[in-house]
Amino acid sequence: MHLFVVNPNSTASMTEVIRLSAVRVAGPGTRIEAATVHSAPASIEGHADEARATPPMLDAIRAAEGRGADATVIACFDDLGLAAAREVARGPVVGICQAGVQVAMTIAKRFGIVTTLPRSVPIIEDLVESYGAGRLCRRVRAVNLPVLALEEDPAEAFARLKREIRLAVEQDGAEAVLLGCAGMAEMCRALQVETGVPVIDPVSAAVKLAEALAGGGFATAKGGAYAFPRDKAAPAPVCPAVTG
Amino acid sequence: MHLFVVNPNSTASMTEVIRLSAVRVAGPGTRIEAATVHSAPASIEGHADEARATPPMLDAIRAAEGRGADATVIACFDDLGLAAAREVARGPVVGICQAGVQVAMTIAKRFGIVTTLPRSVPIIEDLVESYGAGRLCRRVRAVNLPVLALEEDPAEAFARLKREIRLAVEQDGAEAVLLGCAGMAEMCRALQVETGVPVIDPVSAAVKLAEALAGGGFATAKGGAYAFPRDKAAPAPVCPAVTG
Amino acid sequence: MHLFVVNPNSTASMTEVIRLSAVRVAGPGTRIEAATVHSAPASIEGHADEARATPPMLDAIRAAEGRGADATVIACFDDLGLAAAREVARGPVVGICQAGVQVAMTIAKRFGIVTTLPRSVPIIEDLVESYGAGRLCRRVRAVNLPVLALEEDPAEAFARLKREIRLAVEQDGAEAVLLGCAGMAEMCRALQVETGVPVIDPVSAAVKLAEALAGGGFATAKGGAYAFPRDKAAPAPVCPAVTG
Amino acid sequence: MHLFVVNPNSTASMTEVIRLSAVRVAGPGTRIEAATVHSAPASIEGHADEARATPPMLDAIRAAEGRGADATVIACFDDLGLAAAREVARGPVVGICQAGVQVAMTIAKRFGIVTTLPRSVPIIEDLVESYGAGRLCRRVRAVNLPVLALEEDPAEAFARLKREIRLAVEQDGAEAVLLGCAGMAEMCRALQVETGVPVIDPVSAAVKLAEALAGGGFATAKGGAYAFPRDKAAPAPVCPAVTG
Amino acid sequence: MHLFVVNPNSTASMTEVIRLSAVRVAGPGTRIEAATVHSAPASIEGHADEARATPPMLDAIRAAEGRGADATVIACFDDLGLAAAREVARGPVVGICQAGVQVAMTIAKRFGIVTTLPRSVPIIEDLVESYGAGRLCRRVRAVNLPVLALEEDPAEAFARLKREIRLAVEQDGAEAVLLGCAGMAEMCRALQVETGVPVIDPVSAAVKLAEALAGGGFATAKGGAYAFPRDKAAPAPVCPAVTG
Amino acid sequence: MHLFVVNPNSTASMTEVIRLSAVRVAGPGTRIEAATVHSAPASIEGHADEARATPPMLDAIRAAEGRGADATVIACFDDLGLAAAREVARGPVVGICQAGVQVAMTIAKRFGIVTTLPRSVPIIEDLVESYGAGRLCRRVRAVNLPVLALEEDPAEAFARLKREIRLAVEQDGAEAVLLGCAGMAEMCRALQVETGVPVIDPVSAAVKLAEALAGGGFATAKGGAYAFPRDKAAPAPVCPAVTG
Repeated sequence: MHLFVVNPNSTASMTEVIRLSAVRVAGPGTRIEAATVHSAPASIEGHADEARATPPMLDAIRAAEGRGADATVIACFDDLGLAAAREVARGPVVGICQAGVQVAMTIAKRFGIVTTLPRSVPIIEDLVESYGAGRLCRRVRAVNLPVLALEEDPAEAFARLKREIRLAVEQDGAEAVLLGCAGMAEMCRALQVETGVPVIDPVSAAVKLAEALAGGGFATAKGGAYAFPRDKAAPAPVCPAVTG
Repeated sequence: MHLFVVNPNSTASMTEVIRLSAVRVAGPGTRIEAATVHSAPASIEGHADEARATPPMLDAIRAAEGRGADATVIACFDDLGLAAAREVARGPVVGICQAGVQVAMTIAKRFGIVTTLPRSVPIIEDLVESYGAGRLCRRVRAVNLPVLALEEDPAEAFARLKREIRLAVEQDGAEAVLLGCAGMAEMCRALQVETGVPVIDPVSAAVKLAEALAGGGFATAKGGAYAFPRDKAAPAPVCPAVTG
Repeated sequence: MHLFVVNPNSTASMTEVIRLSAVRVAGPGTRIEAATVHSAPASIEGHADEARATPPMLDAIRAAEGRGADATVIACFDDLGLAAAREVARGPVVGICQAGVQVAMTIAKRFGIVTTLPRSVPIIEDLVESYGAGRLCRRVRAVNLPVLALEEDPAEAFARLKREIRLAVEQDGAEAVLLGCAGMAEMCRALQVETGVPVIDPVSAAVKLAEALAGGGFATAKGGAYAFPRDKAAPAPVCPAVTG
Repeated sequence: MHLFVVNPNSTASMTEVIRLSAVRVAGPGTRIEAATVHSAPASIEGHADEARATPPMLDAIRAAEGRGADATVIACFDDLGLAAAREVARGPVVGICQAGVQVAMTIAKRFGIVTTLPRSVPIIEDLVESYGAGRLCRRVRAVNLPVLALEEDPAEAFARLKREIRLAVEQDGAEAVLLGCAGMAEMCRALQVETGVPVIDPVSAAVKLAEALAGGGFATAKGGAYAFPRDKAAPAPVCPAVTG
Repeated sequence: MHLFVVNPNSTASMTEVIRLSAVRVAGPGTRIEAATVHSAPASIEGHADEARATPPMLDAIRAAEGRGADATVIACFDDLGLAAAREVARGPVVGICQAGVQVAMTIAKRFGIVTTLPRSVPIIEDLVESYGAGRLCRRVRAVNLPVLALEEDPAEAFARLKREIRLAVEQDGAEAVLLGCAGMAEMCRALQVETGVPVIDPVSAAVKLAEALAGGGFATAKGGAYAFPRDKAAPAPVCPAVTG
Repeated sequence: MHLFVVNPNSTASMTEVIRLSAVRVAGPGTRIEAATVHSAPASIEGHADEARATPPMLDAIRAAEGRGADATVIACFDDLGLAAAREVARGPVVGICQAGVQVAMTIAKRFGIVTTLPRSVPIIEDLVESYGAGRLCRRVRAVNLPVLALEEDPAEAFARLKREIRLAVEQDGAEAVLLGCAGMAEMCRALQVETGVPVIDPVSAAVKLAEALAGGGFATAKGGAYAFPRDKAAPAPVCPAVTG
């Protein structure tokens, strides 16, 4: 199976973290193709970053299917462009937030999420709500570090993550904790060992669910909302204005 | 007041329909600047079209604020890029779907929506749910015509709209009907006269709400989720892949 | 435009606070008519007060439309009698709670509310839920002062409001704060300056939305739930009992 | 036990229907005191009628508690003034809609409601939602007869009720049907016999639940939202206006 | 009236606590038959215990109806097997959690629940949500004592319950508190006296609602989801496996 | 990987259908162990059947883990005993309804379900709601055939399934259809071919998700609600009664 794992930001070192996490859990017959969206922002922190990253990510997904990809994983916890990707793809497309939430709902009655920046908290809350787990997710916590700080100061990031995971269990009643960023994959195992609570790496969750979907023959439904975009004559470049 | 009304597709004739609708309801002190997003798809039919149109639309909004725009209206019923636009803008940003829903909730206990294509129905349902009116919107109906057909065969479009509005009232119990496309603005008044039920043009709703927000001194809250995007070093152009 | 702003309690000094707030934001073509409901309780604190105030308020609204009012604002954060008012009125009727919530949903992803008495907290929660913002409103806080204390000890009221607004931001994650009482209008600007967070005066919000609705030609839908009350033969005065 | 059953409209013949229904199900130790609110509208059809009827109904409830009433039933399916009544009363107050819904939720997994006028449908839907049964109530149907027509043409009313009950079962999947008007009490048994489906008279449901609450020693919680209204100096009579 | 009150665990002393609570509130014409499910676990703490207790409980309920029981109360706060019991029974079946919630919703706008073990908290939250009171129940608290410790160290249990009830009021805004275990019935009155807040014993609530239902002639709807189980040929004993 | 697939009813021929479906989709390293719960009812049609089947199913799951099972699939669309099974198991436990819903939510924006008997419709609706897909599942339809009729008259079953799938697409707007019974697995492929819409066999979905969970190292969280049941002294056999 050919699994396309796209990191929708332009930071190649994060792609490598993601790739390693994917390779670690992939089944024996799975080939992981990890990609960086080079024309995207360096990290995805908010809706505007999402918007900038989505069009080149869609192109990358379409190209990957052209190269034979059987399924796609969008490896950013904002699940940016997920619905659009399902429109342009034929195979299944999995967002790491949705995948992580589905795993969390299956192994625990109540769970928590720990992400990077406070500004991402409502974005993630809205995603979790749309995936039907709003009532089951006790709270979305933030360690208050930018995404790229996970690489720059991993010791500090680890300490903060450990602290928030413990608070999620003790104060919020979480039974498992979902990491809210693709860049946290490396730390997942150690966090689970040190806290003693199941910690879910969303990249691993998404890789396994993507394998499951493709392996089970489940493809995106193309007869309704996820139909391929209609081809319309594409017009000129920049954006002048008409004044009334 | 300088109101920026952006048509996020590249069809200039639709921008003109929108501009006329905006000018018709704008207050005496309001200057309407209507713009076409020339690098966007010719119409917005689905999430992929939305994704393609959003980045140039964000640029257009930022540029308009640079020219002194006090408030922005996104004139597509998908409210594409609404949250991202609020991140890049300082003034209030109004989506025509959200505005139409807020008007509908204020003048009726239950309402209906009539849009163009069936594939847009779940997109609109999700928007309406996120705006808190899922229970109040009886049903989202589609006339099953592409957006651009509104201009190409207006008589047919009008007949179908009239039919669906009547069904919304008689079968669904709608007390008012919201038109689910910016391109239907021209027909709004005639539809209301012929059906006898309040028909809401979402462009008009959005223009008036944008005037209200800017006039009341209500600006986008910039200290949380709608903070300006952080500036990160933007890297290289296309999208190669790393294989694992 | 003739805008009728009704203070549904009998405290004329509060009407004056409301009137000043309304006049301050009203557009150049708007005439504000502010009214006190003299036969109502001195303040609205709970459902029984609401019930006592509603019938004379409905009479006042009907009379104001008779005098040519184009739109009505009910200037009490409980939005008492809002649906009933829409039944008796032809023009749009705006409640300050619903208007404030609609503004808050437009300028922030998450917001908070600060009201007077704890007993009003669940009332406001229920309103916010019915307006579709239950998930977006982080928390309704109370300063634990009766409505009339806002006038009697404004310094204390201001200090408590400032404190709760800060807690709403720091503890609850609010990005904007909606004042939960018409009588707080005067303090709004100073609270925003001192806390640095957008603070929404619901009276201003309602005045601008009422102008928007009337200006856009949006009237109450009279063919369904908001139809005028049917005229029935009205019988005798007091309330004797039949025993079984 | 002294049970106060208040018909909040001014039609004494409907009070008699209600009283008979109450007496029929009341326990041996229960004394039913049924009352008409003479200064109320002749029937309650919409929010404005509710608003007019509530203040004298509250006075009647307070007076009844003064005469020793142990519990109160508000015998109109709109449950008008229910929260306000709980504020002014010390004993439990039961609305016939809430009681009927609680019975329906207990004896069936899914149920339907049949009421009089279409304009009451959204009002009842909102009540059912607030009582937590929005998902369990399949549909609120209306026979499209005014409340008073139940007495004027009982044969027609019966035929229409029977028809809608059957549709509720066959089309909507209702397993039990709740009658959505106090005035339908007399027909309940015959409707159940002729349709073969459990038909719930809400007056009976409310009388039994009120007996249960009072008998179990459950009184209204007076330390929070249902605290007695604070006494405030009550000012002058009519409603002049201040113009700004 | 013959009321069957089944304690679905095998601890006879708890049955006696339940029986005394039931007898105390039962009406003069009610005969309480309390039963222990001897083949069930000693206490119900989690879903597996529920599953083990349900089949013999269903047998007991069927047998009780055979002896003439008019209504059934399932006296465990998990409401285990409630839907299944309604399938096998003809008369109404009341769970003490649902009954307690219905009483709490009637006497207070917001309430809290205090149960035994933290592991039961999400179970109870899910029940409360399914009964439509998820938004009205402020919080489910646990004293962190096993069910049987209520009997073994009643002084400690009482002290902890009192503390949590006070926190429910002061921190959560509860106006009434529902005890989340059948075994707490004895302490209910003293807890109410010492805390000054209405404390609801769910066994009492259920007994009174069961009397109300049976007394009002409300039986389980047998034409839909609660139809009697179809009789199918019951096969052999143990559980071998087929391997593929 | 050793995957335990338990058919919780006692019909061995249905186990064989399930086993074949599981074997067909299982990965190369997966060994399927399919089991019949011989002491269970012949089919699961309603809550009482579920209750009877659950305890022996739990024993079977515990025994299978003793034999080395890495993950468990409960192969009945009612997902009976799912939470209890997660308490007794160490590995992940997947219900075919939850798995099917998760797949449906991933490949389509809106989906439908077709099950056997009308009495199962509300049961499935409640499950779907608890899995967070209540708003995304357009409708649960029933072919009105008992479970065992799928084997007895497969041609009739196929014809009815095909008809309901088409109605789900045409009338309800479903983009994919989930089969609501484990016994329909054999017909899945043909139904998809003949209707042209993605048809999801829930057994296949569950097998792939169970492989994904076990393969990704995701085990049931044992520190909270899914902790192993506490061992309590198990008392005597049958169920006598105490009368009060």
